[in-house]
Amino acid sequence: MDIETFLTRTADQVESALAGILESWTDAPEVLVDATGYSLFAGGKRLRPALVLEAARVVGGEKAVADAIPAACALEMIHTYSLIHDDLPSMDNDDLRRGKPTLHKAYDEATAILVGDALLTMAFDVAATTNNVDIVREIAQAAGASGMVGGQLIDLASEGKKLSLNELKHLHRSKTGALIVASLRCGAILSGADESQLASLTEYGRQIGLAFQIADDILDVTGDESKIGKPIGSDEGNAKSTYPSILGLKEAQIMSIEVAHDAMDILDVFGREADTLRHLALYIVERNR
Amino acid sequence: MDIETFLTRTADQVESALAGILESWTDAPEVLVDATGYSLFAGGKRLRPALVLEAARVVGGEKAVADAIPAACALEMIHTYSLIHDDLPSMDNDDLRRGKPTLHKAYDEATAILVGDALLTMAFDVAATTNNVDIVREIAQAAGASGMVGGQLIDLASEGKKLSLNELKHLHRSKTGALIVASLRCGAILSGADESQLASLTEYGRQIGLAFQIADDILDVTGDESKIGKPIGSDEGNAKSTYPSILGLKEAQIMSIEVAHDAMDILDVFGREADTLRHLALYIVERNR
Repeated sequence: MDIETFLTRTADQVESALAGILESWTDAPEVLVDATGYSLFAGGKRLRPALVLEAARVVGGEKAVADAIPAACALEMIHTYSLIHDDLPSMDNDDLRRGKPTLHKAYDEATAILVGDALLTMAFDVAATTNNVDIVREIAQAAGASGMVGGQLIDLASEGKKLSLNELKHLHRSKTGALIVASLRCGAILSGADESQLASLTEYGRQIGLAFQIADDILDVTGDESKIGKPIGSDEGNAKSTYPSILGLKEAQIMSIEVAHDAMDILDVFGREADTLRHLALYIVERNR
Repeated sequence: MDIETFLTRTADQVESALAGILESWTDAPEVLVDATGYSLFAGGKRLRPALVLEAARVVGGEKAVADAIPAACALEMIHTYSLIHDDLPSMDNDDLRRGKPTLHKAYDEATAILVGDALLTMAFDVAATTNNVDIVREIAQAAGASGMVGGQLIDLASEGKKLSLNELKHLHRSKTGALIVASLRCGAILSGADESQLASLTEYGRQIGLAFQIADDILDVTGDESKIGKPIGSDEGNAKSTYPSILGLKEAQIMSIEVAHDAMDILDVFGREADTLRHLALYIVERNR
């Protein structure tokens, strides 16, 4: 299956489950449900859910996919909350996200903070429906103080500073990498992965997380504003260290492809079953080119 | 045991466990750990943890208390995050909390948002160490879209509006009541409570939640600023509906005592074992008078 078809199919599955989750918030204030839907259904590739479901399939076969959908939804809810809070005026102060006004522009700042809080909180209610506390802990640790939230704080503190390549890698390993790794691990754990399968998918996740961030930084320089849905050159405007700013654009492009190939090689334990994950690694560095 | 002694003892237990949790955040940025400690150890009565531990004891005896400590910590972490986010400029815009500058004044707004996010996230990691997904779900649902977060949104939307007594009760049932009820339920569930025990503690929680809020509103009119740690009269300044503003001060005082007595009566199923919870109901409406 080609990657666009794969992503569309998993996005459909997950969006239908997310719609059901939002419909179950019957006692929540209407404006909270509306504003949550505004951000949750703003598009997006649903990459993290795709990783959850494909890791579940690679380890447990087609029949394992349905049981992984709650974890896929929980990870997408946490990803969405993180975008909402990152866009706030006191954080990255972004007005546009995926071509639409950011939530605090479309509603107001208090609503945006509370929608983020609600998505984060309810993600754990959804994660707990897997009946597996290890899934709750994987997600909390990846999203928490030593993971995504810690990474966002380092990112804000690094604005205007010139980071080394290792400092930049460390920052993104927590800010974006941890949740990508957790997505793969949750799918694998729910399918009863053994240690070598789990180790392989974890390392694959680290590599595609790195490839994803290098590609993101490259897109901020070379991308098409209408396709990425936000102004290009915003990293330079925010004085952020990026892979192109440290390595140069050409070297960054070479590195992203090398890292994607490293990710593909790690999946040997799964044989041809992992071909979709292999193609996904390449897709991540080739998107929008 | 008198209530002050009981609260001091449970606060000591929980603060020592919370300190251990914060020490385990070894991979988190130092400023995140410091700022979290600033809010987490700013004092406070630790009422929610006390309810968790006492509900666990009433149902399961002294030996059940230790197993309930993670749930007690999780609920206090969520309570602390909610205070941090509620104090933000776009929410209640408070400069003081328990006599100290609020977190966004002591650090900055971005740090305050992220510390709240980290506490909320890590609370679920701690809750999951109970090995009981029902505890995770109790806490998420009480803190989430139909509970505390939804209540805070209704509260903000109600500023400047005159609420009816029923609207005010509904607002506080979600904003503050849900987490108080969840505290009792988590303690009870962890001790293996049967249905009638769980129903009794749930209803007790609803009544003390109501009594607590009426008492809080009364303190905002009659309280001693140095004792409550924030300016008195702030509800009137923020044009908030309160029990005294709807019922008059005298009627509100009578109602708070009646509700506390209702709470005490609900505990019959536990006999004398529930005396500390009974005294706690009275303490809640009599504090600082």
